[in-house]
Amino acid sequence: MDKVIGYLKENFDNYLNELKEFIAIPSISALADHKKDMRDCAKFVSGQLKNAGMKNVKLIKTAGNPLVYGEWMGAPGKPTVLIYGHYDVQPVDPLDLWDNPPFEATVKDGKIYARGANDNKGQCFVHIKAVEAYMKTEGKLPVNVKFLIEGEEEVGSGNLDKFLKDKENKKLLKCDSVLISDTSMYDEGVPTISYGLRGLCYMEIELTGPNRDLHSGSFGGSVANPINELAKIIAKLQNDKGKILIPEFYKNVRKVTKAEKENIKSLKFSDKKYAKELDVKELFGEAGYSTLERLWARPTLDCNGIVGGFIEKGAKTVLPSKASAKISMRLVPDQDPKTVAKQFTKYVKSIAPKYVKIEVKDLHGGNPFYAPLDDRAVQAGAAATAKAFGKKAVFTREGGSIPIVVEFNKQLKAPVVLMGLGLDTDNIHSPNEHFRLENFEKGLYSSAYFFEEYSK
Amino acid sequence: MDKVIGYLKENFDNYLNELKEFIAIPSISALADHKKDMRDCAKFVSGQLKNAGMKNVKLIKTAGNPLVYGEWMGAPGKPTVLIYGHYDVQPVDPLDLWDNPPFEATVKDGKIYARGANDNKGQCFVHIKAVEAYMKTEGKLPVNVKFLIEGEEEVGSGNLDKFLKDKENKKLLKCDSVLISDTSMYDEGVPTISYGLRGLCYMEIELTGPNRDLHSGSFGGSVANPINELAKIIAKLQNDKGKILIPEFYKNVRKVTKAEKENIKSLKFSDKKYAKELDVKELFGEAGYSTLERLWARPTLDCNGIVGGFIEKGAKTVLPSKASAKISMRLVPDQDPKTVAKQFTKYVKSIAPKYVKIEVKDLHGGNPFYAPLDDRAVQAGAAATAKAFGKKAVFTREGGSIPIVVEFNKQLKAPVVLMGLGLDTDNIHSPNEHFRLENFEKGLYSSAYFFEEYSK
Repeated sequence: MDKVIGYLKENFDNYLNELKEFIAIPSISALADHKKDMRDCAKFVSGQLKNAGMKNVKLIKTAGNPLVYGEWMGAPGKPTVLIYGHYDVQPVDPLDLWDNPPFEATVKDGKIYARGANDNKGQCFVHIKAVEAYMKTEGKLPVNVKFLIEGEEEVGSGNLDKFLKDKENKKLLKCDSVLISDTSMYDEGVPTISYGLRGLCYMEIELTGPNRDLHSGSFGGSVANPINELAKIIAKLQNDKGKILIPEFYKNVRKVTKAEKENIKSLKFSDKKYAKELDVKELFGEAGYSTLERLWARPTLDCNGIVGGFIEKGAKTVLPSKASAKISMRLVPDQDPKTVAKQFTKYVKSIAPKYVKIEVKDLHGGNPFYAPLDDRAVQAGAAATAKAFGKKAVFTREGGSIPIVVEFNKQLKAPVVLMGLGLDTDNIHSPNEHFRLENFEKGLYSSAYFFEEYSK
Repeated sequence: MDKVIGYLKENFDNYLNELKEFIAIPSISALADHKKDMRDCAKFVSGQLKNAGMKNVKLIKTAGNPLVYGEWMGAPGKPTVLIYGHYDVQPVDPLDLWDNPPFEATVKDGKIYARGANDNKGQCFVHIKAVEAYMKTEGKLPVNVKFLIEGEEEVGSGNLDKFLKDKENKKLLKCDSVLISDTSMYDEGVPTISYGLRGLCYMEIELTGPNRDLHSGSFGGSVANPINELAKIIAKLQNDKGKILIPEFYKNVRKVTKAEKENIKSLKFSDKKYAKELDVKELFGEAGYSTLERLWARPTLDCNGIVGGFIEKGAKTVLPSKASAKISMRLVPDQDPKTVAKQFTKYVKSIAPKYVKIEVKDLHGGNPFYAPLDDRAVQAGAAATAKAFGKKAVFTREGGSIPIVVEFNKQLKAPVVLMGLGLDTDNIHSPNEHFRLENFEKGLYSSAYFFEEYSK
């Protein structure tokens, strides 16, 4: 084991440079004009897996971006872990808020800044490199390992989702547990295993008023304005106490248990520090729940985008024809995204006035997730990160969604270990996304220790 | 007179080509990067005035775009008319909705399509050309004429406004009436003199939530979303019956007189036809008033633009830092834009939650206007257009604003004649703006007849 850790230490700078190459490929899955980048990025990952000593490495075609697969099954009698990650990244706008070009990784103050440095290129890279270190030193791994790195996580993993439902593919991915690093640590230097994730239901509303943009002077007062009407609809989705007003929305929400409330209490979360870090006078959310309960165990509704009319500098007196909004809801056990999408659509159409045409689209969704804490792999994850960071690991839930986690759990009948290496302050999905070099390094050790712990 | 009309007929095609040259200069006053175009356009207009035989033609410097002035004072003892127009145009977005390039005028089905073809290059051009025809045929005009063509009407005429308040300038512009063609005809082929205009108060709201864009999964539920909050604020500006909820807003609104209600009735306006033309199931506006009352005599509130978060195709799970909206109100006598701006700002700030930072800006405004129907120039306008179109002229009010009209009225103590040549269906301020060639031609005659009628 020391040899492996030693090797990881020696090669840290090389690994950092390879991560920069990985980052340099602008693999934005949400934007159609990045198709070629997606393919290039998949090829880069498969090259990495081959170099790490993986067998049967291949790009698996899908209706969208390819999946990258690789395996090493040389530990008969030992458990098999499937390591999942994604090579696609979020869009980069607004570009002018980046201090450095998003795809030219910049190391500063012990952090690497770039789109994907953290989510998820940096976090999934640690496992590839930990495996490589094992193979280059010991020539083998203490457990069997399979890799599955996808390219559509940021747009809902629709094709991987289909892939997992196929009988043959389930055989290919058969495993005893799934290991994923795509979540956050509770705090700087605090090793964290997450046992829950929120689900997602991402909708889009488009309102059409008059059949063309009109002069707001010549027509104002005679016909409904789609922006005003859209605002009224959004205002009716949530009340001033943060309660979502969609009928039946809370019906399947699992109550926060007493044990969880106590666990949350023990984490001594500071609203004040959090508000200060976000530079808001006061936090806001569903009344009657603490901030961590709202983030981990309660559903939410957020407008992710809105646009209509004249949005450049200056003034244009237009009464626009169209206005649209992207609205997503975070879900918790036991809410179902399809059901929520139906509830949302029905309610929004019911409150839309007859003066406008309305279209409601279900863009994508994912189920929430909840894991058993006593599982062998979950415990191995806690022990491994504790060794790497030299501190007892804490168990948390996540506000974010990895829709596919649920599918792994469901289709492969395997528990999922969420070994998060990011921090909520790392600006993932925002300008100046970054990954702490300390977490990159200790992530490499955590992964290596995991294989050892899991083999016991 | 016949010579003049004959000359206008002969030269119609030349005038149309010169209008195309006028249009080809993309003089968008709202966008800073068109500064040079504004100057080029002003020079084009001064060239036209010289060619029309005007004296003392000059560009007058302002803090913004230059004013173009020219005069012919060779009719002692006769009244003096000041002709006002503007050479600046609206922005052209969304570009993809234009059938032809907005600054390459295209003649099709008896209409000329281009930004500014109607508002206001086409409409103010008829007066320059009518004057030219008089000078080239009769060598003189039956009345004294002054031209003042500005370049900031679409952004509020702020600098002309200042210009008019100066004593020397008032001497320069001294006149018995002001003639403006920048409004709409009541219907196709119906000569129209407008006796009222609505005012404008154009505001902008910007909300700031967290200090950066956040991942809506990791942070959703913990902090207020500026888009959701902006929607709630907009929803509180107007109720479902179209009543504006800003305190004191209606305090100075002049009641619609019985005579006006009767005049409106006599115009036999068809809601059904209007709704069909705009392709809306039903019209919407302040309850208790007819469509024409709402358009002409009642104030309104419209969002002209809104933006926040991710607005491209696809999905991005972001909880944005900022959201903003442009909101304008149309005013009627005796509302005052500055007062309304204060009322709006006070109310909006009072309903904004403490969870977000709010900034409210007063972008620009203009007073409403109301003219005496028995005035000599107003009657001359009605007689002239009736001759040109061969039909009795009707009197209407306009929903739109020409803020400067009020200033002319106030500073020059002269009545303003609004001789509209556009139609509400001409897409001014929208893609595929156009001007009917018939109205261009009869507008030329109307202007020529006006000088004759006004000299009587």
